Amino acid sequence: MPTILGQNQYGKAENRVVKITRDGATHHIKDLNVSVALSGDMDEVHYSGSNANVLPTDTTKNTVYAFAKEHGIESAEQFGIHLARHFVTSQEPIHRARIRIEEYAWERIETSGEARHSFVRKGQETRLTQITYDGERWEVVSGLKDLTVMNSTDSEFRGYVKDTYTTLKEAYDRILATSVSGRWRYNWTEDAQEMPDWETSYEQTRKHMLQAFAETYSLSLQQTLYQMGTRIIDHRDEIDEVRFSLPNSHHFLVDLEPFGLENDHEVYFAADRPYGLIEATVLRDGCEPRIPVDLTNL
Amino acid sequence: MPTILGQNQYGKAENRVVKITRDGATHHIKDLNVSVALSGDMDEVHYSGSNANVLPTDTTKNTVYAFAKEHGIESAEQFGIHLARHFVTSQEPIHRARIRIEEYAWERIETSGEARHSFVRKGQETRLTQITYDGERWEVVSGLKDLTVMNSTDSEFRGYVKDTYTTLKEAYDRILATSVSGRWRYNWTEDAQEMPDWETSYEQTRKHMLQAFAETYSLSLQQTLYQMGTRIIDHRDEIDEVRFSLPNSHHFLVDLEPFGLENDHEVYFAADRPYGLIEATVLRDGCEPRIPVDLTNL
Amino acid sequence: MPTILGQNQYGKAENRVVKITRDGATHHIKDLNVSVALSGDMDEVHYSGSNANVLPTDTTKNTVYAFAKEHGIESAEQFGIHLARHFVTSQEPIHRARIRIEEYAWERIETSGEARHSFVRKGQETRLTQITYDGERWEVVSGLKDLTVMNSTDSEFRGYVKDTYTTLKEAYDRILATSVSGRWRYNWTEDAQEMPDWETSYEQTRKHMLQAFAETYSLSLQQTLYQMGTRIIDHRDEIDEVRFSLPNSHHFLVDLEPFGLENDHEVYFAADRPYGLIEATVLRDGCEPRIPVDLTNL
Amino acid sequence: MPTILGQNQYGKAENRVVKITRDGATHHIKDLNVSVALSGDMDEVHYSGSNANVLPTDTTKNTVYAFAKEHGIESAEQFGIHLARHFVTSQEPIHRARIRIEEYAWERIETSGEARHSFVRKGQETRLTQITYDGERWEVVSGLKDLTVMNSTDSEFRGYVKDTYTTLKEAYDRILATSVSGRWRYNWTEDAQEMPDWETSYEQTRKHMLQAFAETYSLSLQQTLYQMGTRIIDHRDEIDEVRFSLPNSHHFLVDLEPFGLENDHEVYFAADRPYGLIEATVLRDGCEPRIPVDLTNL
Repeated sequence: MPTILGQNQYGKAENRVVKITRDGATHHIKDLNVSVALSGDMDEVHYSGSNANVLPTDTTKNTVYAFAKEHGIESAEQFGIHLARHFVTSQEPIHRARIRIEEYAWERIETSGEARHSFVRKGQETRLTQITYDGERWEVVSGLKDLTVMNSTDSEFRGYVKDTYTTLKEAYDRILATSVSGRWRYNWTEDAQEMPDWETSYEQTRKHMLQAFAETYSLSLQQTLYQMGTRIIDHRDEIDEVRFSLPNSHHFLVDLEPFGLENDHEVYFAADRPYGLIEATVLRDGCEPRIPVDLTNL
Repeated sequence: MPTILGQNQYGKAENRVVKITRDGATHHIKDLNVSVALSGDMDEVHYSGSNANVLPTDTTKNTVYAFAKEHGIESAEQFGIHLARHFVTSQEPIHRARIRIEEYAWERIETSGEARHSFVRKGQETRLTQITYDGERWEVVSGLKDLTVMNSTDSEFRGYVKDTYTTLKEAYDRILATSVSGRWRYNWTEDAQEMPDWETSYEQTRKHMLQAFAETYSLSLQQTLYQMGTRIIDHRDEIDEVRFSLPNSHHFLVDLEPFGLENDHEVYFAADRPYGLIEATVLRDGCEPRIPVDLTNL
Repeated sequence: MPTILGQNQYGKAENRVVKITRDGATHHIKDLNVSVALSGDMDEVHYSGSNANVLPTDTTKNTVYAFAKEHGIESAEQFGIHLARHFVTSQEPIHRARIRIEEYAWERIETSGEARHSFVRKGQETRLTQITYDGERWEVVSGLKDLTVMNSTDSEFRGYVKDTYTTLKEAYDRILATSVSGRWRYNWTEDAQEMPDWETSYEQTRKHMLQAFAETYSLSLQQTLYQMGTRIIDHRDEIDEVRFSLPNSHHFLVDLEPFGLENDHEVYFAADRPYGLIEATVLRDGCEPRIPVDLTNL
Repeated sequence: MPTILGQNQYGKAENRVVKITRDGATHHIKDLNVSVALSGDMDEVHYSGSNANVLPTDTTKNTVYAFAKEHGIESAEQFGIHLARHFVTSQEPIHRARIRIEEYAWERIETSGEARHSFVRKGQETRLTQITYDGERWEVVSGLKDLTVMNSTDSEFRGYVKDTYTTLKEAYDRILATSVSGRWRYNWTEDAQEMPDWETSYEQTRKHMLQAFAETYSLSLQQTLYQMGTRIIDHRDEIDEVRFSLPNSHHFLVDLEPFGLENDHEVYFAADRPYGLIEATVLRDGCEPRIPVDLTNL
C-alpha cells in the first residue's frame, strides 16, 4: 500500500452535562460541554476496519456522565483529569487522552424566599480547558473565548511602515476593542505534584488580564496583548505560557462633516469584516512554548 | 397587469452605532444595532423602477449616525422615536416608519486609577425595541431575547392527555430551563403624552419577569409564562401587553443504572433539538392585542 | 385577575426526521425539520397549570416520526397536511394546528457500481412550508430561504430623493446581489379540492423566480422583486400571493486609484452590514394578502 | 523582564473580495475571503509599542484588493502565492507570510437571452487554501469544509471493546453521515518547480474523495476515512498528505414499536450533539506529516 497512517484520534465530542448539587434549599450548578479524543494502538481500525481495540465513542460519552456522578465536578480541570486518567489507565490500547471542556457560568436569581435554585446564564465569556495525558505527563491548558472588551480612549496607532499600498491615516485617539480568545498553560505536569486551585486561578487570571487591558495606554494592540500576558505570568506562579488571538474590532469614526456636524470621538461605526488579527505567545523566561499557534474553540 | 403590489417597506438594516459620551475621565457607552423600514407612496419604484419617491437606504444610514450626534442616545426607545418622527415628517412620500433596535449592554472594568473608559460586554440578553409611527399614532414594543434561565427544581409535568402516540412518563421533579424571548407593548401612543422612563422601565420589567420565573412552582411552562406576563402587567402601569416565546430547553436525567449508580436529580443531559416551544400573549384586561404572533429578532 | 390570556400555541419544534425509501439498490431520501404548534381550549394550563387538555409536546414529536412511517413523505406539504389534520381531528381541545417544515435537498453521488445509496447535501437554499388547519380551511404557504444570487451588471440606481443626509452617488452599473427569502401562498384551501403537485410546483416556482431575477434590467431592487413575484403568479395558477424579503447585499467597487490602478467594474468588496432590506408582497389581482409582513424562518 | 515573546503574527483577516471578469456578454466570478498573517522582526511592537517595523493591517487589506486587479485571480492558490511572495520580498522585517483563503463557488443561471452575468451561489462546501512562504520554501495546503455526505446503508459497527460503561448495541446496517472537513498538502515547494493545475487538482481530489466515501463498505468511520485519504494520494501525484476531521453525524433509528409499527431502516432521528469525531492523517509512504492536528477553518 502506498500510504501510511499518521496522527489519529477519536472520541465523542460535545457531551453536554449539567450537574446539580443540592445543599438543602441551596442548589449549585456546573454546566459543561465535554469532548473526548483518544489515541493509541489504532492502526487496524483504519487499515482493515477491525474494531478490536476501539472503545466506542458511545462508551466515552457514558463515562462522562457516570464520572459526573462518581467524582462530582469540582472544576472543569479536575473533572478532565479524572477522565483522562481513566481512559489511559483502564484500556491498554489507549495511550493518550485529550479532554476538552467548555464551561458556561450561571449566576443566582435572588428572590425573597428561602429557595435558591434559580439561575440566569451569565452569558459572557466561555471558559475553556484542555487536559492531555499520555500515561506519564499531564498538560493542562485553560483559557476563555468571546470576552468582548473596549477602551474608548488611550489608544494610538502611528509611526508605522508605509509602502505603495498604504493609505491609512495615523490615529492619535481611537477606540481599541477586541473579543479575547486566550489560553494559558499550567506548569503542573505530574500526579505527585500539588495541583493549583483551578477555580481561584481562573478568576485571578481573568482579572489580571482585564486590568492589564484597561490600564495599558496602547500604542498598538500587540503592545496591549504583551502586557496582558506579562501581567498574568507576573501574578500567577502556576502559569508559564499565555497565548492570545485578538481580533482588532475596528470602530471607525463616522464622517459627519457632510451634515455640518463635528464628530469629536463620539459616534463610531462598528465594523464586522475585515478585522485586524493579532496573535502572540508570552512565555515565562526560560520556558518552552507548547500552546499551538492556532487556538481552537474547545 | 394580473398582479398588484401589497404591503412593502424598505430601508437600511443593521446599522451598528457606538456612541461614546465623555464626562471628564468617565466615559459612557451606548451600543446599538439600528434597522430602518419605511413605507408610503412607493408603487412606482416597484412597477416601473422610478426612484423619484425613494429616499436611498444609504441616506437612512447616514441619518442614524447624524442623529446619534444631534440628539444623543438617551435610550434606544427615545432614539427610535427621534428617527421615526424625522422620516415621516420630513419626506412627503413616506407615511410610516418602523425603527428596530438591538442594544448590547456593557459594564465597566474597575481599575485602580482615575480613568474610567474601559468596558467589558455584559453578554447576557440582547435588549430590543421597535418604534412604529404613521404620523398620528406611536407604537412602542420593547423586549429582549437570549436570556437563558433555569430552575433546578420546583417543576412538574403530569396529568396530561394520553393518546396512541404518548410514551412520556410523568415528571414530579424536573429542571425547567428556557431562553426567554419576550416583547412588551407600551400604552404610550401620542407625542402629547408624557413618556415612560424607558431605562427604568426596562430594568424593572426584566426584574419582575425573572422573579416570577424563579418564584413560581411550575406545573407547566405555560403556567410559568402566564405568571411572568402577569407579574409585569401588575407592576408596570405603562405596559398593556406581553408576549413570550419560550423554548422548553429539555434537560434529561441520565440513566446511570447500567453502571450501578443512582441519579437522584444530579446529572442531566442538556438537549439541543427538538425542544418544546411555548408561546402566549398576556393582556391587561380590556386591552387589544397588537404584538404579532411570531416574534422577530430585531 | 387584572390580566387575560391572548393568542397562544405550543408544540415540539425542530423534529429532525430523515426518511429512507429503498427501491432495490436505489435509495431515496427525504430530510426534514418539522415543527408543530397547536392551539385550542388551553386557558386552564396557563391560568392554573392543569394539563388536562394538553397533549404533550413529546407526543407531537412521536407523531411526526410515526407518520413518516405510516404515511411516508411524498412532499413536505403533503406530510404537513397529514399531521395537521390528525391533530385537529383527533383531539377535541385542539382547534388549530400549524406545521412548519424545513427541507434539505440531497443529490446522488454517482459511482461505477450498481449501488445507489450515497448522497451529498445540495447545500443551497432551504425549502420551507407552513400548513395551517383550523378544522375548516387549509392554508399552505411554501417558500425558501438563503438562496444567494447575483447579477454582475444590468443594475442601476439613480433618480432618487436627496435630502440633508444624502451623500450617495448615483450608480450606472452596479452588482445586484441578494439572499432570497421568499414565501408563496397556494390557493388550495379545502380537502375536497384537488391538490397541486407540490414537488413540481416548487421546482417551477424556483425556476421562474431565478429567471426573472436574471432577465430583469434593474433600476431598483424593488423593481426586480416585483418582477420576480409577477413572473411566479403569471406562470403558476396555484399561487395567489408572493412575499419577498431581499437584503441588498452591497458590493462596493474598491477605489484603486491611490495605487495607480483603474477599477473598471472588476474588483468589489462584499460588505456584511449594514445592508438595504427590501420587502414586498405581490398579489394576484383581486386576492387578499395573508402572508405576514415579517417572514419567519420555519 | 520575567517574560519573553514567543511565536507571533498579525495581519488583516477576512477580506471579502469579489472579482468579475468580462468576456463580452459572458461574465466570470471569483468570490474569496482572504486572510493575511505576517511574522518577522516584530519584537519591538510587542515590547515597547514601536510600530517602526509594522506594515499596517490596513495596508495588507489594500494589497489584497490591488493584487486582484494587478494579477487577477486564476485560482485561490495562485492568488495566495502572489500575495505571500510580495509580503516576504518587499518588506525587510517580514520573514514569513501565511495567506488563508476561503472560496465560495457560484453557478450560472441559464437564461434564454445572450447575457451571461447571472449567478446563484452553489452553497455546498467551502473551498480552502493556505499558502505559507518564508523566503525559501513554499507550503500549500488546500481543502474544504462543510461538505455533508451520507450513505444510507453499507455501514456496520461491531466487534468493539466493551467495558463497565459500554451500553451500545452492535449495528449491522446503519446510516453513515458526516460533514467532511479535509486538508491536503501539495508537494510543490519551490518557485522553480512547475506548479500543479490548482483548479483541476481541486475538482479531481474532491471527486476521488466522494467516490471513496460512496464505494467503501464501512466497518468503521476510521476505515472509510483512511480509504478517502488513500484514494486521493493514489490518484493525485501532487499530493503527499491528507488529513480529515469527520464528525460521525448520528442518525438513530426511531423506536416505533410502542405505536405498533415496524421500522425497517426507514425512519431516523438526525441528532445534533454529541457526535463522534474521527480525525486522522494519511501520508504517502516515506513523507513527513506537516498538517496540524487541529484543522482550522481558514
